[in-house]
Amino acid sequence: MSNQNKNINPNFKKANRIKLNAEDLTKKLLEGNKMQLSHALSLAESLRSEDRKIIAKVLSNYKKRKTKRIAVTGPPGAGKSTLIDSIGNHLATQGKKIAILTIDPSSPQSGGSILGDKTRMEQLINQENVYIRPSASGTEAGGVSAATMECILLSEMAGYEYVIVETVGVGQSEVAVSDLVDMYMLVVQPGSGDELQGIKRGIMELADLFLINKADGDKLELAKMSAKAIDASKSLLHPKAHGLKPQTLLYSSETLLNIDKLTAAIDQFFIDIIDNQFYEKNRNSQMSLWLTREINKSIIETVEDIPQIKELKSSLQNQINNSEAFPIEAGGIIKQAIEDIFKKSS
Amino acid sequence: MSNQNKNINPNFKKANRIKLNAEDLTKKLLEGNKMQLSHALSLAESLRSEDRKIIAKVLSNYKKRKTKRIAVTGPPGAGKSTLIDSIGNHLATQGKKIAILTIDPSSPQSGGSILGDKTRMEQLINQENVYIRPSASGTEAGGVSAATMECILLSEMAGYEYVIVETVGVGQSEVAVSDLVDMYMLVVQPGSGDELQGIKRGIMELADLFLINKADGDKLELAKMSAKAIDASKSLLHPKAHGLKPQTLLYSSETLLNIDKLTAAIDQFFIDIIDNQFYEKNRNSQMSLWLTREINKSIIETVEDIPQIKELKSSLQNQINNSEAFPIEAGGIIKQAIEDIFKKSS
Repeated sequence: MSNQNKNINPNFKKANRIKLNAEDLTKKLLEGNKMQLSHALSLAESLRSEDRKIIAKVLSNYKKRKTKRIAVTGPPGAGKSTLIDSIGNHLATQGKKIAILTIDPSSPQSGGSILGDKTRMEQLINQENVYIRPSASGTEAGGVSAATMECILLSEMAGYEYVIVETVGVGQSEVAVSDLVDMYMLVVQPGSGDELQGIKRGIMELADLFLINKADGDKLELAKMSAKAIDASKSLLHPKAHGLKPQTLLYSSETLLNIDKLTAAIDQFFIDIIDNQFYEKNRNSQMSLWLTREINKSIIETVEDIPQIKELKSSLQNQINNSEAFPIEAGGIIKQAIEDIFKKSS
Repeated sequence: MSNQNKNINPNFKKANRIKLNAEDLTKKLLEGNKMQLSHALSLAESLRSEDRKIIAKVLSNYKKRKTKRIAVTGPPGAGKSTLIDSIGNHLATQGKKIAILTIDPSSPQSGGSILGDKTRMEQLINQENVYIRPSASGTEAGGVSAATMECILLSEMAGYEYVIVETVGVGQSEVAVSDLVDMYMLVVQPGSGDELQGIKRGIMELADLFLINKADGDKLELAKMSAKAIDASKSLLHPKAHGLKPQTLLYSSETLLNIDKLTAAIDQFFIDIIDNQFYEKNRNSQMSLWLTREINKSIIETVEDIPQIKELKSSLQNQINNSEAFPIEAGGIIKQAIEDIFKKSS
């Protein structure tokens, strides 16, 4: 009876595996199949090496194109989702294909704002040209992992030329997301200089475009003042690697103020960085960065599994529990141990 | 001539080294010397292994005491600095010794808010019982590193019984800082439910105390509503590891509303967690975490220096530059290479 069960289960697994076949998945992706794209993104985010191998195979069919990867970041309440809704809708009606990936780092278990609903992209949900992935949060601290880069690549394989990566709320992802995209858009709501203080120089220095959102009704005048404050502080920022000066634009998701200027600014930015070769250089260095991270992760996992290192680690742990040592000394001890093992092998 | 120079330089270095002698530094720290504490913190944050060795020696004299490590976090504009100024002043006049360490993660080069001044702790600056370290930002992403933990330990060696760790602005440090402290205080300003949306569940779940700051004048009524909104959302949070329910308090740095309640709440929190042994357990697991991080850092640095791994990494780099591979495959290749080297040695 239990033997029979054993026979049934492997068959079940095989049936599942056929469903996940890399060639079929690649074919479906290249056809732009949304359901299979969602499936591929889940595999990319999976921790099972089996799943990641399928994605590695799928990605071997990735062809470089001049896609546009854009981060939309900003403090909570800046109206990022409605902004993406309006601009995405505008682009989609022009026949452009847009994928929207949301990164939500601060609560791996639960995700999302505690008092808020998740999706305010009402117009986009029914757009054929738009793919929305509500939470592409990685499994690593910061919510941005190599898997997020793979999600971008997979979306592009499925034909999406704009990939918008939205960071949700206050989070660690605001800096990390810059390692994924070509263009960094910082969205703020109209506010006094005092409120703009909250936007850190580090974030400001990432911005390729400052968007003052909600520039409508009562807030229009305040928005203009905010634009001036931001423009004034730009002189304090280091020059960008691509050599272009970040623009400041007023915007309103309600009145669609400057929507044409905004899409034109995005397109012009890409023309300029492709032209001056920043686009290519930046993508290469991003790939190098992800390579380094993947390598480092693998180094740690593999070395920690070596019996001598495992033992040493648990002895250090004991010493620290007994207050006989502090972590500050551990690095040197581990280094010595690894070097000793390698000396023996060479 | 060049030989003479060689003779002079080592002497110079020796003279410097005498200044940094671990025993003398320990003695000065235990006497509570602020200048030498600053010096010790700089050594802890230094990347030179020589400096870190001195700190390891100094820390070997660390004696466990029931100190209070408190994080003060919250969105920009919540008034964290003035809050710390008023509460620190209150405690200092009661004869308590307080160290304040500020973590500013988002701009490693420049630090600080772009439009703001750094220190609004006007009362504290002249307090004998208070030590302020304006930026204890680590060298690692997130601004929180093992060095920050060492800074806490060194401050405690210098006699500070309250160590307040303030995170500056929107940043990755808000989650990371919870690995450093016993008590996590989340400061918000009075706002509507909509604004409170911006406070992520992940951050709310860290909080041991919710402080609604600026509860004065016009804002008092709004502050009361905010308190209700927070209290309502508490039911959605997972229970805390220490089993205590997080309190909500209104506060004003101007009118000092509830200052006695606040300090009493802090003291009671510590009595309770010492009593139920969370205090000890939590500190042990924090130390384990820092141990793991130090070990991982050392593993990467040491293994990356092994010639075979170095070569392999650069070959993977080339393949990625030529779009022949994606980082997703690198992990498995590196794992195999490390295992092969270790098999030879055993």
